[in-house]
Amino acid sequence: MATTLSTIPRDDGFFVPAEYAAHKGTWMLWPERTDNWRNGAKPAQKTFVAVASAISQFEPVTMGVNRSQFQNARQMLPLQIRVVEISNNDSWMRDCGPTFVINGKGDVRLIDWDFNAWGGLTGGLYFPWDLDDLVPQKVAEIEGIDRYKARIVLEGGSIHVDGEGTLLTTEECLLNENRNPNLSKKEIEDVLSAYTGVSEFIWLGAGIFNDETNGHVDNIACFIRPGLVALSWTDDHNDPQYPRSKDALDRLSHAKDAKGRSIEVLKIHQPDPVIITPEESEGVDSVDGTLPRNAGDRMAASYINFYMCNGGAVVPVFDDPHDALALETLQGHMPDRRVVGVAAREILLGGGNIHCITQQQPKG
Amino acid sequence: MATTLSTIPRDDGFFVPAEYAAHKGTWMLWPERTDNWRNGAKPAQKTFVAVASAISQFEPVTMGVNRSQFQNARQMLPLQIRVVEISNNDSWMRDCGPTFVINGKGDVRLIDWDFNAWGGLTGGLYFPWDLDDLVPQKVAEIEGIDRYKARIVLEGGSIHVDGEGTLLTTEECLLNENRNPNLSKKEIEDVLSAYTGVSEFIWLGAGIFNDETNGHVDNIACFIRPGLVALSWTDDHNDPQYPRSKDALDRLSHAKDAKGRSIEVLKIHQPDPVIITPEESEGVDSVDGTLPRNAGDRMAASYINFYMCNGGAVVPVFDDPHDALALETLQGHMPDRRVVGVAAREILLGGGNIHCITQQQPKG
Repeated sequence: MATTLSTIPRDDGFFVPAEYAAHKGTWMLWPERTDNWRNGAKPAQKTFVAVASAISQFEPVTMGVNRSQFQNARQMLPLQIRVVEISNNDSWMRDCGPTFVINGKGDVRLIDWDFNAWGGLTGGLYFPWDLDDLVPQKVAEIEGIDRYKARIVLEGGSIHVDGEGTLLTTEECLLNENRNPNLSKKEIEDVLSAYTGVSEFIWLGAGIFNDETNGHVDNIACFIRPGLVALSWTDDHNDPQYPRSKDALDRLSHAKDAKGRSIEVLKIHQPDPVIITPEESEGVDSVDGTLPRNAGDRMAASYINFYMCNGGAVVPVFDDPHDALALETLQGHMPDRRVVGVAAREILLGGGNIHCITQQQPKG
Repeated sequence: MATTLSTIPRDDGFFVPAEYAAHKGTWMLWPERTDNWRNGAKPAQKTFVAVASAISQFEPVTMGVNRSQFQNARQMLPLQIRVVEISNNDSWMRDCGPTFVINGKGDVRLIDWDFNAWGGLTGGLYFPWDLDDLVPQKVAEIEGIDRYKARIVLEGGSIHVDGEGTLLTTEECLLNENRNPNLSKKEIEDVLSAYTGVSEFIWLGAGIFNDETNGHVDNIACFIRPGLVALSWTDDHNDPQYPRSKDALDRLSHAKDAKGRSIEVLKIHQPDPVIITPEESEGVDSVDGTLPRNAGDRMAASYINFYMCNGGAVVPVFDDPHDALALETLQGHMPDRRVVGVAAREILLGGGNIHCITQQQPKG
């Protein structure tokens, strides 16, 4: 039975586990909107198939689809991937989907945050977002698990936890006036502590340059394990990303986690600038109210936007000279996982990457 | 994993169990189309809630909904009923839904029959029926069970099995030229034997008078247990139903089941004629291609269109003098079940009854 709970996870003994804890499976949503995905979303769909297929080597994957794409998605995806109807406005399961919590006794519940398409009527990326906002409840119904309704605007990609009491986020996103303008930083921390169970916050400043999510942390930095944070980096002091990454490095270097540990930082050098081509831009329908994809714009490419699954890590690559070192470095620091690269330019063209399109459901 | 099988259930050791065998749960679909359900489907929705609630006393219920009704259905239904998106053209899970098969070793699969809305372009009840036709596959995906795709037009409500090798059906429906005009009676029997596992057919002639399904058996007769068939009856020789029921009685009286047993018949007297009122007719949107609901038309009311669930039976009642005897008689012959009456006029107004809107998933 999927009850809607009016209590608070922390009070009930529940907390958000780290992504590197054991999963029951992965949830995704299928891309189709032609005002965001070029060429009728067909190239993106192929890439989503590649990502889902890679993850399904490691754990079960469920793909939520709008009814218009059910047959096509079922036909394109490998059989071991479950395809279910979950109507959506776009395909960013990390951000509109649920955040799962566990209590360490085998019970799993989920948090249903308010969702406003990364900024609502003040900079949101499309309108409306009504279907996206129902995704967590629909996942709860399918799985028959209880749901906490949290009255705060939050996307899953704007926070990372280490599973041991520490939360990593960015001021650019969480303090943005287009999310929760009536909450102070302290009030946001209080809500997040209550829902995720953390006791310590590490605030970075900004995210990746030109990231349309207002600087989601999951594109610039993530926990590899407690005490170790991977950070998107550039050695080019003239790159607009440099001051952002340098500031993040400084903040991480001075931070302590909830266990009192200093943070070790693993720099992952970013790919060379990835630019939207005229051909790519022309393949996207022009719709008022949806963020356009303009030729010449630099995209927020980062290797950090990867996804850890049971025994694996699926990492975006860009046919870039930095790809090999990124994969090698991550593999070196995750010896218990098999690191798999997936060519991800088509996801990036839609405004995010592999982490943004996935959401882990922890094992109970 | 929900594989689509090209083999035949009988060859794989699978067969259709009787409705009175143990269930894992019940599947339903939520009514909403305003060209079939009066007053925006609101009275029907209340009745579906009553039916689902009654069944959920006995076993788990899953309600499939179109996305437009997700929130309303979730709000109207008790919490213990699971609500999932299964897009549909109308709400007749018995007919467009899957027929489940088991192998007696704990495995469950399902049959996905072709569906043409009770007659396709020659007398079908609405157009299109594309979403209905996908319902079995979507159930298979949600449950992760294998699916046999059967290339024959068949609705679940047009057949009953006793679980011991006997199938009960009507010529009016199965031999209708709007279903499988290229198949002979013998060929239809061969296909049904292969898919359901039966070896003996009991063919009734016609179903209930004015039944828009072309005489589905599930409105006129059903197995109470092997060897015992309940039959909708009237003592009024001038009622147009009389020759239909009399013919069925004669055929049943001369039939043997697969085990060689004669069939005992339990007459259940029908309610008095149930007529569509002008007010009811006026509440239905007029749409070309959808069967109209005309004031003064007699509906195909029958107590036989009830549903057996674990330890229970949910029976339609009509605020009619015959209600009490029908419930009492059924209860007397199903001592291990609790018989529950649900006021079902609003379902009847849409063209069917409680059995038509339910589908059992057997226990593995």
